[in-house]
Amino acid sequence: MADWADLRLVDHHCHGLVQRDLARDDFETLLTEASTVVGFSAFDSRVGLAVRRWCAPVLDLPVHAPAAGYVARRAELGFAEVDRRFMAAAGLSALCVDTGYVPEPISSPDALAALIDGSAYEIVRLEQVAEELFGSVDAAGFADAFQSALARRTADAVGVKSIAAYRVGLDLAPERPSRDEVTRAVWRWFSGSRRLADPVLQRFLIWCAVDRGLPIQFHVGIGDSDVDMKSGNPLLLMPLLRAIEPTGVPVMLLHNYPFHREAGYLAQVFGNVYVDVGLATHNLGDRSRVLIEETLELAPFGKFLFSSDAFGLPELYYLSATLFRRGMAAVLDAGVAEDSWRAADADRLAQMVFSGNAERVYRLLGHTA
Amino acid sequence: MADWADLRLVDHHCHGLVQRDLARDDFETLLTEASTVVGFSAFDSRVGLAVRRWCAPVLDLPVHAPAAGYVARRAELGFAEVDRRFMAAAGLSALCVDTGYVPEPISSPDALAALIDGSAYEIVRLEQVAEELFGSVDAAGFADAFQSALARRTADAVGVKSIAAYRVGLDLAPERPSRDEVTRAVWRWFSGSRRLADPVLQRFLIWCAVDRGLPIQFHVGIGDSDVDMKSGNPLLLMPLLRAIEPTGVPVMLLHNYPFHREAGYLAQVFGNVYVDVGLATHNLGDRSRVLIEETLELAPFGKFLFSSDAFGLPELYYLSATLFRRGMAAVLDAGVAEDSWRAADADRLAQMVFSGNAERVYRLLGHTA
Amino acid sequence: MADWADLRLVDHHCHGLVQRDLARDDFETLLTEASTVVGFSAFDSRVGLAVRRWCAPVLDLPVHAPAAGYVARRAELGFAEVDRRFMAAAGLSALCVDTGYVPEPISSPDALAALIDGSAYEIVRLEQVAEELFGSVDAAGFADAFQSALARRTADAVGVKSIAAYRVGLDLAPERPSRDEVTRAVWRWFSGSRRLADPVLQRFLIWCAVDRGLPIQFHVGIGDSDVDMKSGNPLLLMPLLRAIEPTGVPVMLLHNYPFHREAGYLAQVFGNVYVDVGLATHNLGDRSRVLIEETLELAPFGKFLFSSDAFGLPELYYLSATLFRRGMAAVLDAGVAEDSWRAADADRLAQMVFSGNAERVYRLLGHTA
Repeated sequence: MADWADLRLVDHHCHGLVQRDLARDDFETLLTEASTVVGFSAFDSRVGLAVRRWCAPVLDLPVHAPAAGYVARRAELGFAEVDRRFMAAAGLSALCVDTGYVPEPISSPDALAALIDGSAYEIVRLEQVAEELFGSVDAAGFADAFQSALARRTADAVGVKSIAAYRVGLDLAPERPSRDEVTRAVWRWFSGSRRLADPVLQRFLIWCAVDRGLPIQFHVGIGDSDVDMKSGNPLLLMPLLRAIEPTGVPVMLLHNYPFHREAGYLAQVFGNVYVDVGLATHNLGDRSRVLIEETLELAPFGKFLFSSDAFGLPELYYLSATLFRRGMAAVLDAGVAEDSWRAADADRLAQMVFSGNAERVYRLLGHTA
Repeated sequence: MADWADLRLVDHHCHGLVQRDLARDDFETLLTEASTVVGFSAFDSRVGLAVRRWCAPVLDLPVHAPAAGYVARRAELGFAEVDRRFMAAAGLSALCVDTGYVPEPISSPDALAALIDGSAYEIVRLEQVAEELFGSVDAAGFADAFQSALARRTADAVGVKSIAAYRVGLDLAPERPSRDEVTRAVWRWFSGSRRLADPVLQRFLIWCAVDRGLPIQFHVGIGDSDVDMKSGNPLLLMPLLRAIEPTGVPVMLLHNYPFHREAGYLAQVFGNVYVDVGLATHNLGDRSRVLIEETLELAPFGKFLFSSDAFGLPELYYLSATLFRRGMAAVLDAGVAEDSWRAADADRLAQMVFSGNAERVYRLLGHTA
Repeated sequence: MADWADLRLVDHHCHGLVQRDLARDDFETLLTEASTVVGFSAFDSRVGLAVRRWCAPVLDLPVHAPAAGYVARRAELGFAEVDRRFMAAAGLSALCVDTGYVPEPISSPDALAALIDGSAYEIVRLEQVAEELFGSVDAAGFADAFQSALARRTADAVGVKSIAAYRVGLDLAPERPSRDEVTRAVWRWFSGSRRLADPVLQRFLIWCAVDRGLPIQFHVGIGDSDVDMKSGNPLLLMPLLRAIEPTGVPVMLLHNYPFHREAGYLAQVFGNVYVDVGLATHNLGDRSRVLIEETLELAPFGKFLFSSDAFGLPELYYLSATLFRRGMAAVLDAGVAEDSWRAADADRLAQMVFSGNAERVYRLLGHTA
């Protein structure tokens, strides 16, 4: 494995860690996207086997330690120590933290930054900013109120995120909705529940984000059983991508599995589209190598980034980083071995993917974390 | 290859064997899903090459014996002897036989059980039970009549099967249809042809099956040219799967290729969803190894089963079993070689996939075959 | 690598070469399907790395020569010499040239034939023939006028091509439209712009092509950012394929990535469907080996063809041919090494794919180029 395999990674999409000790069921629930762990064990899947393989030694257990012993050792050390160990071992230099999903108290970006001895930047979730205005303005005033709130909330942020895939799917019309359309849609929304799920408003949020000029992350593909996966195919975004491309605002397609080849295509043909394979990386264990290879069939190396999409468990940061490093090393080393590129090319391409692309797109180096 | 590679398999979805000697065209027609074999030979595809490689020696021919010689030797031995040899060589301990597709006389579950020196259980095809009532009850009486017929037909069965994918596609509304909706739909159906293809009735059949508490097999993905493959994407089932999950009734996604990664995702996120790669296993020849690997990216080992979906030719039982054993062995051995898991884990996971999962989900061990 | 790896290929779908020297931006624009090369370099993707690896030596540069030097050397030699070198090195015996896309002056089929010291045949683009009639006949006369024009234009052609995927998507009704429907659709078309994008007329064009009895090429899957990729899924063609199959007219599914497994399925189940992986072959670089393997999971070897879909750059001819040869060799050699087939089978299968299938389907040998 090349020297660069030890370089630190920028994780451009991640979340905080839960602040409690976990029973086995709680641990398994956080490990995968399953809605229940009844009837089978998450340890009997690639991600669970990867925990036993890669995470056990970080907790002073032997490689492949059994699941029960792993969970017991975790409890023995306490979550704070477990967090410290995995975050330090992950080899991360900077994080872009999505602060918009907080089902229970989780660690802040600052706390995460301290754990990695690096920097943490904020990604603002568009739907969360909108939902904070639910019922607190009148419908006609929502558009202005949202734009002001977004400006305020993103003053120090490096990007925003849309979870349109979870709410209305990615088959979005490309046009910026008119003020009247927005007002009417807000009327409908305000007469229902707080959860925003309206295609007109999702589009409005996205176009407000375009106006801010910050990279826009889109949830794509793999998620839990609440996501309508067939509506999470990134090809559905093509009309909107065509409309955004002339603005030059970067669009970051997150996760993408099992549509990662489709995402790679979009990263080739649209100048402003970038892709990652977060969440899938740790879920697939050592198979993430193939996922990386398939995504890079069409995606230029200058458009491919690392993310963990870790939530809750520090193991997910560590696993993703470890598996991504190994996967990239395997892909790049194979290219050198097959004489598809030189070792010097591999070094340069790895540096782009590990941190250079994220630093450039999110302008991290000039930014105060 | 590990010792477990010789363990016997449970084939959880298969069919009877044709009871006649076959000319080359008939043999090729049964070998693949092609509607015609004019203009090219099925032997010039992976499944045909796999027949020459793996099946020829079972008929005392050299490995890779040419196609013409293979078909001639088959005729010389006679179908009964050919059936005996392949079924004995397949290494199967139990079969779950779909008895609902009988385009010509085929062997019964009992006859198949004798051929493998094991057990055969019945899978009842929902559409067949419904179609037997065509025109013999009045529309208002259909719902009760079907429920009675299903109870009677499944008294000794271990599961049921839906071919909604062939009839109306998998984009089914999740709700159990009302009695009025069913009656109206039966009216429409009874004024047309016997072939049931109505989304309301397909849903009714499925919910009646849920009430029976038996595992429900769904045809998904690959089939012949009559299937509307784009409507056979398992992601279309998500609303229905969300509705069924709380009942705990197992849902078995059959075949799945080329949507096997999507199926693997469903097996991860829904507690009651199981997957296989039947039919595709023998069609892909040695490439079935990759199919298995891709499905197991997300599918837990506790949710993955073996099936052949063999119909007509005993070669399909033998090929599927042989290729599945080899594919699983390659995947599990590679994991051991890469230190992704230990040999003892591989043994345990293989046992689950080979027979344990099927025995548990279909409750085979307490069942009288 | 086997001897047949040096056999000449028939390229059954390709285009002319631009007749000018190219600055780096122009070269990069022609190298991929990207709409812009701002912000990253096409050389930092698989196809660009493949140019440096495989093409540099043809221009007397060292293997992996840097991008800037490559483009400079290209200019130094001049486009005519560059064309000569790559086309001679590609090892092509015959070309089927789509003459319907001419955004700037490009080389003619005759000129291409001279460059490869072989034969060039014409593929007539259906939409181009139709658009030449725009406004020059009345709506009621269009149907006859088109049929006459198509007969005239295809008198010496070996096939036709539909770009329905670019215009209206592949979700086409299977029925031949009535004369009235055609007339009404022409009315609508003639009151708008010259660009034909009407599902009724696309279907009419295709059925006129069926009447001509010539192989019909369909753009499927990968294209530039103008294509609606989700509507380019070949499974959408199934109703039309069912309708065409009884006529025996060959349907050639082009490109197909990332739907190549779906295309392979269609090639298995429809007697008259053929597939290739053109355009994707050079875009994927050495990963095209996997693309070939995945397509051949279901596609019979007798249904799989080579094409480059090269446009503009002779490098694309050379790269596609080189990568396809290497990919096929790797796939076939692996099969021999794993004892999936014999070396003699590999020889025969390679010959079919390299040239035999194209010669048979397009009837090239009896045709005057």
